[in-house]
Amino acid sequence: MSMREVFQRELSEVQERLVDLSESVTEIMEKASIAFLNSDVKKADEAIALAEVNEERALAIDEMAIRILSRQSPVARDLRVLVSALRISASLERMGALAGHIATIARFRYPESAVPETLRKTFSEMGALDCALGRKLTQLLRNTDVDLARSIQAEDERVDELHRSVFDLVLSEKWKENAIYTVDVTLASRYHERFADHVVDISAKVAYLTTGEWSELEA
Amino acid sequence: MSMREVFQRELSEVQERLVDLSESVTEIMEKASIAFLNSDVKKADEAIALAEVNEERALAIDEMAIRILSRQSPVARDLRVLVSALRISASLERMGALAGHIATIARFRYPESAVPETLRKTFSEMGALDCALGRKLTQLLRNTDVDLARSIQAEDERVDELHRSVFDLVLSEKWKENAIYTVDVTLASRYHERFADHVVDISAKVAYLTTGEWSELEA
Repeated sequence: MSMREVFQRELSEVQERLVDLSESVTEIMEKASIAFLNSDVKKADEAIALAEVNEERALAIDEMAIRILSRQSPVARDLRVLVSALRISASLERMGALAGHIATIARFRYPESAVPETLRKTFSEMGALDCALGRKLTQLLRNTDVDLARSIQAEDERVDELHRSVFDLVLSEKWKENAIYTVDVTLASRYHERFADHVVDISAKVAYLTTGEWSELEA
Repeated sequence: MSMREVFQRELSEVQERLVDLSESVTEIMEKASIAFLNSDVKKADEAIALAEVNEERALAIDEMAIRILSRQSPVARDLRVLVSALRISASLERMGALAGHIATIARFRYPESAVPETLRKTFSEMGALDCALGRKLTQLLRNTDVDLARSIQAEDERVDELHRSVFDLVLSEKWKENAIYTVDVTLASRYHERFADHVVDISAKVAYLTTGEWSELEA
């Protein structure tokens, strides 16, 4: 096998592992969202455990990317693909941690619910959007030719809108819940919003991998 | 000049820029902390403006690191130093954004204060600790031989303790403030805590640069 073939094979493995990581992050968010909405402590524990594994797997991808950089000394596009892989794995690691935080809120409030009735619909939609974004991200990482950028953008905007609506409600006269609820929904809303932000960040990096126009997308 | 000399000079420039970025991040936190504690809207605006510049400067460092990787194809320790630089600049970018968020909370609540009297002392200490951590980080990046790891660890633990104490108070019977205060202090406390976390993350990476024991520190 030529150096080039070895490199391409190694790069494919990095990509496969990022796809796996993205699938696992989506699974963590699915479990966390159910745990949060239904006070499902079993799902919460599963999400928290998976988030820990997720962190280790992200670090393993980083080590692999650095090993390839070291052995192959890639330049130009190949180099940028690997640097992107490092950034994508860092984002996926944070996404797993954020989903884990949502599960932890559910865990702490068990057997009570962390979600007041007035916000159930909002968080249900936010959770569903984050899971949908996770699945689109996996698809995008699996096949960088896919054009999902527009729908990812639209879904992230909707998550931002819901995030603001949580604050609008909490800061309005209508909000009668106690401080525990206020803290829980404030943080949970923030975690959902950051999760979606990371999907947008990663999709910009994946788009670059296709177009090669790094600085334009970073700007 | 030999390739090696060029590389060393370029590496020094990356380091200098990281030192500058760390100084700027500390300045943003200093302004944000004053803005937050004293409802100082001028300081808030300065912090928010600096946070935007900070983001651009972090991206410029990344571009420089990638250019060096591309031209020099470093291996072994040199390669890991550059990959660390990319990670450190990503953390410094987030730290600037977090400090900017604290300033934004002060901005939104102006002319009222976002800090209730019962938490003034706590946030004053948290802000001072974050600024001290920022200054230590600058020192560490300037001279990687400095042993600050222990004091950074201790200060981060104190920030975590204060962060928990904010939640303990807010979730206790004693908390009589309205939801606006609850939201503001919940998020502000979280931002202070994440800022300190990043300092710990970066200091582990800087420590690696001295010892060369990457995987040990990443574990």
